[in-house]
Amino acid sequence: MNSFGTLFRLTTFGESHGAAIGGIIDGCPAGLFLDMNLVDSELLRRRGDSPDTTSRREADHVEWLSGLFEGHTLGTPLAFLVRNEDCRPQDYDALRGLCRPGHADYTYESKYGHRDHRGGGRASGRETVARVVAGAVAKQILSQKGISITSTFDASSVSCTAIGLPAGVGEPVFDRLNARLAYAMLSIPSAVSFTMGDAGNDNIDVWADAWTPHGKGPTLTATNHCGGVQGGISNGMPVVFHVGFHPPVTDPDGMLCRDMEGNLKQVVPGGRHDRSHITRLPVIVEAMAAITLLDLLLQANS
Amino acid sequence: MNSFGTLFRLTTFGESHGAAIGGIIDGCPAGLFLDMNLVDSELLRRRGDSPDTTSRREADHVEWLSGLFEGHTLGTPLAFLVRNEDCRPQDYDALRGLCRPGHADYTYESKYGHRDHRGGGRASGRETVARVVAGAVAKQILSQKGISITSTFDASSVSCTAIGLPAGVGEPVFDRLNARLAYAMLSIPSAVSFTMGDAGNDNIDVWADAWTPHGKGPTLTATNHCGGVQGGISNGMPVVFHVGFHPPVTDPDGMLCRDMEGNLKQVVPGGRHDRSHITRLPVIVEAMAAITLLDLLLQANS
Amino acid sequence: MNSFGTLFRLTTFGESHGAAIGGIIDGCPAGLFLDMNLVDSELLRRRGDSPDTTSRREADHVEWLSGLFEGHTLGTPLAFLVRNEDCRPQDYDALRGLCRPGHADYTYESKYGHRDHRGGGRASGRETVARVVAGAVAKQILSQKGISITSTFDASSVSCTAIGLPAGVGEPVFDRLNARLAYAMLSIPSAVSFTMGDAGNDNIDVWADAWTPHGKGPTLTATNHCGGVQGGISNGMPVVFHVGFHPPVTDPDGMLCRDMEGNLKQVVPGGRHDRSHITRLPVIVEAMAAITLLDLLLQANS
Amino acid sequence: MNSFGTLFRLTTFGESHGAAIGGIIDGCPAGLFLDMNLVDSELLRRRGDSPDTTSRREADHVEWLSGLFEGHTLGTPLAFLVRNEDCRPQDYDALRGLCRPGHADYTYESKYGHRDHRGGGRASGRETVARVVAGAVAKQILSQKGISITSTFDASSVSCTAIGLPAGVGEPVFDRLNARLAYAMLSIPSAVSFTMGDAGNDNIDVWADAWTPHGKGPTLTATNHCGGVQGGISNGMPVVFHVGFHPPVTDPDGMLCRDMEGNLKQVVPGGRHDRSHITRLPVIVEAMAAITLLDLLLQANS
Repeated sequence: MNSFGTLFRLTTFGESHGAAIGGIIDGCPAGLFLDMNLVDSELLRRRGDSPDTTSRREADHVEWLSGLFEGHTLGTPLAFLVRNEDCRPQDYDALRGLCRPGHADYTYESKYGHRDHRGGGRASGRETVARVVAGAVAKQILSQKGISITSTFDASSVSCTAIGLPAGVGEPVFDRLNARLAYAMLSIPSAVSFTMGDAGNDNIDVWADAWTPHGKGPTLTATNHCGGVQGGISNGMPVVFHVGFHPPVTDPDGMLCRDMEGNLKQVVPGGRHDRSHITRLPVIVEAMAAITLLDLLLQANS
Repeated sequence: MNSFGTLFRLTTFGESHGAAIGGIIDGCPAGLFLDMNLVDSELLRRRGDSPDTTSRREADHVEWLSGLFEGHTLGTPLAFLVRNEDCRPQDYDALRGLCRPGHADYTYESKYGHRDHRGGGRASGRETVARVVAGAVAKQILSQKGISITSTFDASSVSCTAIGLPAGVGEPVFDRLNARLAYAMLSIPSAVSFTMGDAGNDNIDVWADAWTPHGKGPTLTATNHCGGVQGGISNGMPVVFHVGFHPPVTDPDGMLCRDMEGNLKQVVPGGRHDRSHITRLPVIVEAMAAITLLDLLLQANS
Repeated sequence: MNSFGTLFRLTTFGESHGAAIGGIIDGCPAGLFLDMNLVDSELLRRRGDSPDTTSRREADHVEWLSGLFEGHTLGTPLAFLVRNEDCRPQDYDALRGLCRPGHADYTYESKYGHRDHRGGGRASGRETVARVVAGAVAKQILSQKGISITSTFDASSVSCTAIGLPAGVGEPVFDRLNARLAYAMLSIPSAVSFTMGDAGNDNIDVWADAWTPHGKGPTLTATNHCGGVQGGISNGMPVVFHVGFHPPVTDPDGMLCRDMEGNLKQVVPGGRHDRSHITRLPVIVEAMAAITLLDLLLQANS
Repeated sequence: MNSFGTLFRLTTFGESHGAAIGGIIDGCPAGLFLDMNLVDSELLRRRGDSPDTTSRREADHVEWLSGLFEGHTLGTPLAFLVRNEDCRPQDYDALRGLCRPGHADYTYESKYGHRDHRGGGRASGRETVARVVAGAVAKQILSQKGISITSTFDASSVSCTAIGLPAGVGEPVFDRLNARLAYAMLSIPSAVSFTMGDAGNDNIDVWADAWTPHGKGPTLTATNHCGGVQGGISNGMPVVFHVGFHPPVTDPDGMLCRDMEGNLKQVVPGGRHDRSHITRLPVIVEAMAAITLLDLLLQANS
């Protein structure tokens, strides 16, 4: 539904041009000192600085509504919100009643009967703010357990690595670690593919990562083609996966839009739109990885 | 956990060399005439006929334990089992206490403290029998709603298409249709990648599938690069995705295995092992697609 | 966890003396005109007017953060909050580190290791604000479907009736209508008992409510001892149940409290405490009934 | 849905006159030696011996299908079934198309459109077999953690006590221990009321169980009117609750039944029916308590 996770769970809310974006985090352990600076720096990464990225400059100030007392978590739900301040909804007036190609406009209209046409409503990338905040909290908890998450990227594929995850995380059959990661990543707006380890190689030897004999080296296997997951469960090696994204689909120069009867109309959308957004995605990938790994780790320990 | 789905749900059980494999299907509507022949033919596809595939010849006879009365579903849970008959557990004696490379042996041992070493236990591909049975039931229900699922395959990537799914299926943010499909596919043993539509293309025009004007053609968009899903929700076009698999990792000629202390030992595994299994996978991909799409369709209609 | 419901779901947050109380409502259908006055009047009932009830005068102003556009619901999550304004946390300073008898102080301390001692934290009756808001929304949706909920009360037992619920609501075995209502009611702070229909009568004839012959009367059964539920599923008759509560357990005149080592100390708690709160409970009972019945109704229709 | 529990979960199947009754238990820890004799003795308690109870003599032999290896649990799902052997479905022929008063016949017919009229289908008390089996497993796990469950009964109310549960079990707000117990008990066929501790007493002093000073006695509170639960969380004292049941509603001497058009018809039902069944209920109450407490204990420890 609108929640993600079982033992460490995020429930989000908020449309792009509504009053605020936010969420409730359940399952945060009691007694954790929550570093607000870490949360802010993650949101800064999400905003991006390059002239190529969005010119929407939100302050992204997080207000915490519950779950904290004298700087530490209570173990009760952590609710937070971020006000939508830098809105220019009038930029979207030209789009009222029209569906842009490649966007969720048409599908939302079909599903709900009407929609908030301003800025993409709930389909907007803005809802990833809540994910990044929860990811920042999850990262702090994982960090205390010796688990760190990093990422790199190129033009279309973002690659993520988690180091320190103990063996035994992931549930057999349906809740496999790779399946849960795929679920998390494909839920990111504009994500189109997920790959675990070194996919594409048909050589048995590659997939049967050879064991390192006891005492001969610090790692379990000599290679790590499987990306740290065997049979859907972690083996203690670094967890490695790759997520592919398509580029932003709003062309600021003009697009042929459609109304609900099927008539086409050329529109210059207005508003502010990214020409490239790949630099903003790694922090979101890491956030989803953190939330997923923490949830599965808690399940494994229960 | 061990269940898959929310409104149409499958809970499975069974190890490769236990008494039986089976499951409980929840959410099957009342009054459906269940065609047993369809279920059997799907299981036949799973077994495969090529000399290249497994030589384990299970009868795969499905026994239905509940949920049916005078040939029709009652709306109560449908429980079924398939006895494991063609077992030769002694083939696995050589593997007691040893972990094969590339398998789940080590991770299961780490997670549970001990395991059923015979035939891969619950990590075995045999548990996919339950998925195929449930998929066959789901396909019949979808078929009554005008939705059909087909697939093709090559050496490593299986491609699946679902035709007839109405627009509006999928839930925004976390339960996106593409995310749920990715989750389903990566849970299949040996799956390593998931791709929606035509991933890999960085051209905006490609991703902004152009609309077909009203009355000018039978389809919503002129192309279908997005694979029938926009913003995580179906738009009525065919849903298209691809799943990548790695080859079977048991080398019948011998493998360097590892015990839990780290000592290595060369073993010829015995038992019967596939050298290639790609022909057996499409029916499993279709089954998972059917279960997922039906579940999301029910959610969309609620 | 911290959520209630499956298809119509409420996730809440907030401690008594934190920044705010609130929640996220999932599953609200699109296109509903949300009447804010109804929400406010329900909150007014919860506050109570009698001099016997609490002297904490919160404004209880609801701020809606998402899910609404031009007065109508979008079908996306409805998030709301109510600021805690009338706080006097210093009233609770005397209780820092002490556990009052009959309260959740000790159990929260045991579970979490520390707690927010101000005003009962999350165990406070104040979290029922979120339930009443969600209940007000649920009532409006039920009202459109011809279902109404009323209640009466006496010194310790509140009685609730729901009229208009169609037959067939409730799921067999575990998610029975009476079981879900019991779960909802016993989750209300200070609730101690739940009774369906006319419990306590051992006469078979009473429990086998006689049918009204077709055309002889407007109702299905001549009596309604079972309270509208047979086999855990509604039969169309009014759903009737009773909830018993214990009185408030904070004695403003003084209580023997306990610290975590076991030492006892007499304390006059300060703060503001109700001597009786029964007049405030019916709206909470109705709210929980509305949320539960709507959720089960949606499940039945799916 | 058809599952009960989150971390220790039971999914059941089976109609009274179908092939078998059974279930899948998820979340059973690995390495537990499962004592089959204990399971059998619990089922014997459920069958009853008194001439006043049912004359249906099922062998109630449990067949375990998965999850066990060399006598110990694997940590994978435990599936089991019990064949329905002592069936006399022809006894129910007189009831085809008719709804008995006080039974679930009418509500099932309304919900599903048709039903298995033999023996009450899934509404039958026979499905409690699966609960008792799972309860027997849960009891063994709880026993290893020093927690025991006992019960007593009188003509209509069964009372249950759990000793040894540590403090801190239960989740605030919605998943309170008392709420989960109420949910579990009201799901038992013929259950009509649930009461925690000493309900009915309006004296503040009673509800504010006085603390025992440190060192002065072995218990936390001097009395236990709250039944071991404060604020929905256990405090370490014995958990005490009471469940009320109505008597069996099938009158073997004859009942006025109803068809789906509203016409009434006197029928002597045939089949075998209990005149009193209270002696069979305590084991079911204990089973549901065991499953619920174990699930919440696992949640508390995660």
